[in-house]
Amino acid sequence: MSYKERLQTWRDRMSEELDRVMNFWIQHSHDEEYGGFFTCLSQNGDIYDDLKYIWLQGRQVWMYCHLYRKVSKFHKEEILNAAIKGGEFLLAHARPNTDSIKCAFVVTRDGQAVKVQRTIFSECFFIMAMDELWRTTKEDQYKEEARKTMDQIVYWVREDSSGLGRPELPGAAPVNAMAVPMMLLNLVDQLSEEDEEAAKKYEDLRKWSTERILQHIQRDGSAVLENVSDEGKELPGCLGRHQNPGHAMEAGWFLLRQAIAQSNHDLGRIAVEKFVLLPFLSGWDQEYGGLFSFQDVDGHCPTQLEWSMKLWWPHTEALIAFLLGYQATNDPQLLEHFQKVFDYAFSRFSDPKHGEWFGYLSREGKVALSIKGGPFKGCFHVPRCLYMCEEILSKLLAECDKT
Amino acid sequence: MSYKERLQTWRDRMSEELDRVMNFWIQHSHDEEYGGFFTCLSQNGDIYDDLKYIWLQGRQVWMYCHLYRKVSKFHKEEILNAAIKGGEFLLAHARPNTDSIKCAFVVTRDGQAVKVQRTIFSECFFIMAMDELWRTTKEDQYKEEARKTMDQIVYWVREDSSGLGRPELPGAAPVNAMAVPMMLLNLVDQLSEEDEEAAKKYEDLRKWSTERILQHIQRDGSAVLENVSDEGKELPGCLGRHQNPGHAMEAGWFLLRQAIAQSNHDLGRIAVEKFVLLPFLSGWDQEYGGLFSFQDVDGHCPTQLEWSMKLWWPHTEALIAFLLGYQATNDPQLLEHFQKVFDYAFSRFSDPKHGEWFGYLSREGKVALSIKGGPFKGCFHVPRCLYMCEEILSKLLAECDKT
Repeated sequence: MSYKERLQTWRDRMSEELDRVMNFWIQHSHDEEYGGFFTCLSQNGDIYDDLKYIWLQGRQVWMYCHLYRKVSKFHKEEILNAAIKGGEFLLAHARPNTDSIKCAFVVTRDGQAVKVQRTIFSECFFIMAMDELWRTTKEDQYKEEARKTMDQIVYWVREDSSGLGRPELPGAAPVNAMAVPMMLLNLVDQLSEEDEEAAKKYEDLRKWSTERILQHIQRDGSAVLENVSDEGKELPGCLGRHQNPGHAMEAGWFLLRQAIAQSNHDLGRIAVEKFVLLPFLSGWDQEYGGLFSFQDVDGHCPTQLEWSMKLWWPHTEALIAFLLGYQATNDPQLLEHFQKVFDYAFSRFSDPKHGEWFGYLSREGKVALSIKGGPFKGCFHVPRCLYMCEEILSKLLAECDKT
Repeated sequence: MSYKERLQTWRDRMSEELDRVMNFWIQHSHDEEYGGFFTCLSQNGDIYDDLKYIWLQGRQVWMYCHLYRKVSKFHKEEILNAAIKGGEFLLAHARPNTDSIKCAFVVTRDGQAVKVQRTIFSECFFIMAMDELWRTTKEDQYKEEARKTMDQIVYWVREDSSGLGRPELPGAAPVNAMAVPMMLLNLVDQLSEEDEEAAKKYEDLRKWSTERILQHIQRDGSAVLENVSDEGKELPGCLGRHQNPGHAMEAGWFLLRQAIAQSNHDLGRIAVEKFVLLPFLSGWDQEYGGLFSFQDVDGHCPTQLEWSMKLWWPHTEALIAFLLGYQATNDPQLLEHFQKVFDYAFSRFSDPKHGEWFGYLSREGKVALSIKGGPFKGCFHVPRCLYMCEEILSKLLAECDKT
C-alpha cells in the first residue's frame, strides 16, 4: 500500500467509526425529560444507572458543540439541542451551593447533588462545556460562566486551595500532579481560540502550565513521572515512582499543540521524545500488546489493581500523539507506532455489534467490563480522538496532493 | 480418606501455613526505629513504600496480641514487643488533631498524617488494637482509649455523623452500608469478651447491629445486597444492586458467632442459608473457580474494574464461614464447599517460595499483583483465617475422639 493509500485507509476508518460512535450516544444517552445525558450505558446502550457525573456531562456538551461547530455532517439541530439542554442542566444543577463555584462530582437524574470531590476536575469540564457552548450559540451567559469559573480554579490552584475543602496535613507535602497543569493548559487553549484578548490574559498561565508539565521529566530525562514535588523534584515512595503511560502521551500532544502553534521546535522535540516515545516504549506490553494503565519506574509492582488492564483512553491519546507527532516531525517511526496502536485499538476496543468502544480489557486483551459508559467513561475520548485523527489525516492527504 | 483424616490434613496445613505467614511478617514488617509496621511489602518481603496505613497498623497489633494471648507457640517476647511498639505508635500518631478522636487513614513512617478519610474504619481498628493490647498487657490506658473511641464512633453512627466531615447533600439519602453494622458487631464481640459489664453496656448495640445486617437480605430472601436504605429497603441504581460475595460471607460468620454464643438456631439457619450459601452459589466463578469480587444482582456488568478479579480475603472469609457453619449445623455440604475453597486458595494464593499469600489474581487465577502487602492488605485476614480454622478443626477433632 502506498503512503497515500495508508493515510486514506486510516482516515476512512476514523470517519466511519466517528459516525458509529456518535450514533451510539445520540441514540441512547439523551435525557429528554430532565436534560443532560445518561452515561451509564451497557454494551447495547441500555441504561443501567441514571446518575449524572458532572465531568462527563461537561465533556459531552463540549464534544457535541465542537463537532456541531467544526464538522458539517454533525451540524444538526438534534446535536445542538442536546448540547444546550446539557448546558442548561449543568447551569441549574452542577453547583450544589449557589454561593459557590464548587461543582458536584455526581448528581441524581433530576440534579440533586450526591457527592462532591475536593478536586478541580468537575469545574474544569464545566468550563469546557460553557466556553464551547458560547462559541456555538454566541449566548454571552455561557461565556461569563466559563470565565468566572476559570478565575476561581486558577485561584484555587495558584493562590489558595483551602476553598476546595482539603485539610492541610503535615505529612502531605504539596504535589505537582501532572493532571492539574495539563488540564489548565487545555483550558487555556480552549478559552484562547481565536480570541487575542483571552490569549493575552492567559499567556502567563500557559507558560506556567507548560513549565509545570515539563517538570515531570525526571531521572536525567529517562522517565516521565506523574507526581513531583512543588519544586519539581522526585517524591519518595509509590507516589513518586508512579507512571501513567497514557496520561504522559496525552500531555505529549497537549505540548505538541503548543509547539506547532508557536513554531517552537525545541518544545516539539521534547514532547515527542520524552512524552510520546518514552512512555510508549516502556508502557507497551511486549507480551500481549496494548498499553499498561500504570507502571512503577523502578519496576516494582504497582498497587493499583488495574495496573495491567488495557483501558480505552490511553490508546486514543496515543493515536492522537503519534499522528500529531508525525505531522510536526515527519519521522516515519511515529507512523509505524501509530499503526501498531491503531491495529490493537480497532480490533479490541471497537464493538462491531453495537457501536462505541469497550473501555476495559484484561491484560490479555479480553473484554473485562462490557459497559460502554460509566462513572469514568462517557462521550469524550473516543470521538475526540476520531475527530482529531480524521482532521490530521486530511491535512496530511492535502499535503500529498500538493506535492 | 476418613472424616477424621480429612480434618487432620486440613488442620495440619492451616497450622503450618500460619507459621509461615507469621514468619513473613515478623521477619519483614517491623519498624525497629519508629515502631509500627511496614505493610507495603513485595513478594519476597522487600519494603517498596514506608507509608503506614492506620487500619493496617491496628489490625497487625490486634493479630499479634491475639495470637500471643491464645496460642502458646506465639507467646513470644518478640511478638509482644512488636505489638506494644505498634500500639504506642498508634497512640502517638494515629490522631492528627489531639483534640479529636478522628484518626488518619495513612501517615508517614515517622507518623505525620498524609490523609484523613471521612469514614469510621481507621478508628474501628484502632479500638481493636487497643482492646486487645489491654487484654494482653493489662495496662488500663489501652482499655480507656478503646472505650473512649468506641463511644465516639457509636455516637457518629447512631446519633450525629457531622463530626466525620461528610457534607450533607440532598441527593445522598442515608445508606445502611453493611460494613458499618458488621464492624460494630465485631467490636461488640471484641469488647465484651469475658466482660459481663461491657456485654450489658453493648447489648442494645449488639441487637441493633444484628438487625441492621439482617436488613441486607432482599428480593424475598433471594439475595444479600451491600447497601440498603436507612429503612432497610432496596436502593435504586448500581449502589442498590451492588453485591460483594466475600463480604456477605464474612457477615455470615459474624452472625454465626452470635448464633452459637446465644444458642439461637434461627439466627444460625439464616446466617448459613442467606449469608453463606447464597453468596457462595452466586459468587463462585463456574468457569475459572474462585469468588468474584463484586456482582450486580440483576446481572449487569459491575462498574468496578476489579469485579472479576479473585482477591485473597473473600476466600479467607469463605473458609471461616463454611467451617463455622459446619460446626453449627453438621451439614456435610458445607464441608464440601470448604474443600473447594481450600483447594483453590492454597493452590493459588499461597506462595510456597517466600511465604504469605498473594492478594490479587486475575479472573483466570493468575497472579496479577505480586505484592504481599499494600494499602489494603496487611497482617490480618490470612492469619485470622488460619488461626480460626485451626481452632475450629481442633474442636471438631476433639469431638471425633469423644465419640
